[in-house]
Amino acid sequence: MIRFLTAGESHGKALTIIVDGFPSNLKITKDYIDSHLRRRQAGYGRGLRMKIESDAVEILSGVRFGKTLGSPLSFLIRNNDWENWIERMDHETKTKNVEKISIPRPGHADLTGISKFNLDDIRNSIERSSARETAARVAAGSVARRFLEEFGISVGSYVESLGGIYPENDFTLDLFDNNLNKKFNAWSLSLEADKSDVRVIDKYQETKIINKIKKAKKLGDTLGGSFIAVATGVPVGLGSFTQYDLKLNAEIAHSIMSINAVKGVEIGSG
Amino acid sequence: MIRFLTAGESHGKALTIIVDGFPSNLKITKDYIDSHLRRRQAGYGRGLRMKIESDAVEILSGVRFGKTLGSPLSFLIRNNDWENWIERMDHETKTKNVEKISIPRPGHADLTGISKFNLDDIRNSIERSSARETAARVAAGSVARRFLEEFGISVGSYVESLGGIYPENDFTLDLFDNNLNKKFNAWSLSLEADKSDVRVIDKYQETKIINKIKKAKKLGDTLGGSFIAVATGVPVGLGSFTQYDLKLNAEIAHSIMSINAVKGVEIGSG
Amino acid sequence: MIRFLTAGESHGKALTIIVDGFPSNLKITKDYIDSHLRRRQAGYGRGLRMKIESDAVEILSGVRFGKTLGSPLSFLIRNNDWENWIERMDHETKTKNVEKISIPRPGHADLTGISKFNLDDIRNSIERSSARETAARVAAGSVARRFLEEFGISVGSYVESLGGIYPENDFTLDLFDNNLNKKFNAWSLSLEADKSDVRVIDKYQETKIINKIKKAKKLGDTLGGSFIAVATGVPVGLGSFTQYDLKLNAEIAHSIMSINAVKGVEIGSG
Amino acid sequence: MIRFLTAGESHGKALTIIVDGFPSNLKITKDYIDSHLRRRQAGYGRGLRMKIESDAVEILSGVRFGKTLGSPLSFLIRNNDWENWIERMDHETKTKNVEKISIPRPGHADLTGISKFNLDDIRNSIERSSARETAARVAAGSVARRFLEEFGISVGSYVESLGGIYPENDFTLDLFDNNLNKKFNAWSLSLEADKSDVRVIDKYQETKIINKIKKAKKLGDTLGGSFIAVATGVPVGLGSFTQYDLKLNAEIAHSIMSINAVKGVEIGSG
Repeated sequence: MIRFLTAGESHGKALTIIVDGFPSNLKITKDYIDSHLRRRQAGYGRGLRMKIESDAVEILSGVRFGKTLGSPLSFLIRNNDWENWIERMDHETKTKNVEKISIPRPGHADLTGISKFNLDDIRNSIERSSARETAARVAAGSVARRFLEEFGISVGSYVESLGGIYPENDFTLDLFDNNLNKKFNAWSLSLEADKSDVRVIDKYQETKIINKIKKAKKLGDTLGGSFIAVATGVPVGLGSFTQYDLKLNAEIAHSIMSINAVKGVEIGSG
Repeated sequence: MIRFLTAGESHGKALTIIVDGFPSNLKITKDYIDSHLRRRQAGYGRGLRMKIESDAVEILSGVRFGKTLGSPLSFLIRNNDWENWIERMDHETKTKNVEKISIPRPGHADLTGISKFNLDDIRNSIERSSARETAARVAAGSVARRFLEEFGISVGSYVESLGGIYPENDFTLDLFDNNLNKKFNAWSLSLEADKSDVRVIDKYQETKIINKIKKAKKLGDTLGGSFIAVATGVPVGLGSFTQYDLKLNAEIAHSIMSINAVKGVEIGSG
Repeated sequence: MIRFLTAGESHGKALTIIVDGFPSNLKITKDYIDSHLRRRQAGYGRGLRMKIESDAVEILSGVRFGKTLGSPLSFLIRNNDWENWIERMDHETKTKNVEKISIPRPGHADLTGISKFNLDDIRNSIERSSARETAARVAAGSVARRFLEEFGISVGSYVESLGGIYPENDFTLDLFDNNLNKKFNAWSLSLEADKSDVRVIDKYQETKIINKIKKAKKLGDTLGGSFIAVATGVPVGLGSFTQYDLKLNAEIAHSIMSINAVKGVEIGSG
Repeated sequence: MIRFLTAGESHGKALTIIVDGFPSNLKITKDYIDSHLRRRQAGYGRGLRMKIESDAVEILSGVRFGKTLGSPLSFLIRNNDWENWIERMDHETKTKNVEKISIPRPGHADLTGISKFNLDDIRNSIERSSARETAARVAAGSVARRFLEEFGISVGSYVESLGGIYPENDFTLDLFDNNLNKKFNAWSLSLEADKSDVRVIDKYQETKIINKIKKAKKLGDTLGGSFIAVATGVPVGLGSFTQYDLKLNAEIAHSIMSINAVKGVEIGSG
């Protein structure tokens, strides 16, 4: 049974990740994990924070001489800006002049968080509800990705639409049609998408999207979008129809929907 | 912790349901559960099977004198057509002339099932992958519904679209706008939808949908659709942002996506 | 992942068992399960209830033509005395003259049960806390036993001591010493023990124990004891030291200690 | 739901602990946790390693200004001797002259570990199977202890016997008899035991035990023993008899038996 827990506040000392249940003798390196953390930080219009972060894992356990031991893996992703946050986030001493955040933002977990946890400072809530936690998941997920590679299973993704702007053609279908008899590897979709600042495959679409982002930014607005995730090499019979909580579609929906800001999941053509 | 397991083949002797973790002293009756099973069986174009079924639970445990005991509830939903299936579904003796199903249907779990479980008769797979299992879930779910009623929490649903035919107006938004200061109960949506053979609220939409179903039927085709589920009376702070697997959206997506034939879930405006 | 739930009151209509997660194509019969239920009911000084019971399963799902389907198995063990209990245990209607039990027994879950579940009749608690539930576990466990047989894994047990009376020699050690190079099967211990009314291997010990039981009975007292469970054919590497909740010893201790009346577990020489 | 995972090799960089599910606004400090880590390291005949360790947690998340946030807590317990182990335990680079351990010790998980995980160096197994992991559990457990204090629940323990040497009187029973009407706090047992190098309450017993340890040491042998754990202030109704896996006795047995070297658990008078 594979399982993981993450911990860590957005501006805390570090994110902590424990990943449990992977087999021994799986080759994995800090470089491999870091390369996926870097992919998370790329992209058009990324804020200053992303640049300060330049996330990297510190492997604390579970790996020796480049291979897993069967014991749980643990990682830290340090907050590179911690120096500037110690006073505000200290685990023990409260500096007198630390200001509290008191105005909840709409569309965030702010109000829910302070109500649920009976907190008097919205910072106590947003530090964990922040999407920064997804860095921890990328680290955990990259172990899973490494494991799946051993079986020839590959997962790739790209942005399908942003601000309502879709590509001219359905790139995925084309790819599949053209590669039905070749060994198409879903990861190639990610490699292609990574070349674009907004992770689309269609260059014409990219220009239109960036223009729309610029306009939205001026208006102090943001844009929604959608992404496609594809897996190749998947064997028949993953998941099960025998009990409601074993259905693969349901598990996938759970994982994807647990990502901050994701509000919809469709399988196949939905 | 509330949990449940279901068991039972589509044409087996009975569906079995064990529901564990509900508190004691909750009032619940066979009539209440059966009324929800009947709602599942209503609707335009329901086949012969649905009529034979006329599902009803037999309460086996967990309830005494109309109230839960705190111990697990268990139910049977008997197959009313069992007499005609004994030979084909006997748990022990194989009658020589029982025919095997050997042609897997597209879009079903047939091929996956016999591959995964190494079966030589597709019946062995479809008997459990069948949507008949959802009757067991309705029984389990009606205990949850009864429990939520005690807290003034109500869940209702209706069909939003079928075959691409949407209502003229967004009924839900209207309802919310008109009821913001009144006590709007989501269950009233279900009551309204139950009046329609295709569970839509808009009468004009209903006519168009039924016509489209008739056409599809002639062509041996089926139609997809979408439904809206609404919950009212929900307290602030259900679920949690503190760990990926506690997110309420993710849990909801998991549950909904585990229903046979559901291929997409959206939260809010998606 | 193998899991199971049981349900059912001691004098209710039936015990219900759902066993989930066993693979397909495992041969299993009602006779096999019933033979283990009968072993549970044997023994010296068994009360009238045991005789009325003569437990047998009704297989409701998960098995077809003598083999598992991969789908969950479900069983009923009917209460053969249900006729005489309908009025007192009806799930809906309360007959006026049903007497409540109001005096909690020491050493039982009576007081705890009615406090925990806020019940006004001790019967509502004892019906589930009763050791009758172990019949459901024997049914579930016999599926596991059948499964393990396929791998040559065998589990057997016998009574080591009763009322402080131990055998003259350590039977198990002898058996192991004498069989180190032969194929010793732990099940043979059970077969041997089943010949004795008090499930001991040593005949001399048996006589002493039965005499002690008779004396205790006269005084309205009961006797404690201990039993040895042995598994043979177990492969190296079950369980894991990598995380506290995966330790095999811990899992075994959990399972054994969850049996009513068991108050101690030792592994190896303890 | 409270849960935790630990990670870390015995001579790795650090032990990592994530504790999830505790409520917000619980007061907890590094000092509190460290005081329990120190108690783990005390005792007669503790080796050099224990002295090098002088374990202390580094709080990484979940606590701000002395109170929990509701988000997961994470801790590191650094290996103070890491400098001397980097080469042998590096997660990436294998120094040529790192010696492999090839002789498995009896009574340890050595052989099992390398078989289960297909390892070619016993070090890869013993680094996780080592009892050093219990330091991580003490850190996790001290959060639970802090939480229980808020409800007046207290847990204490002492060594009952070592090398077969028991106290003259049953200290616990005396304590209970003398304190039945007073507020007896189980923690006072630990305070009393902590005064003894071998954690016994009876001074006469202590002398005899230390003499026996000295003799065993000369012979290159070790001694087994037993300890008593007592909880006071526990409310009625923890755990449940409604399902096998909810029984409090079973949960306790699981936790205790998961501690390295524990081979038996008894509840009450066993």
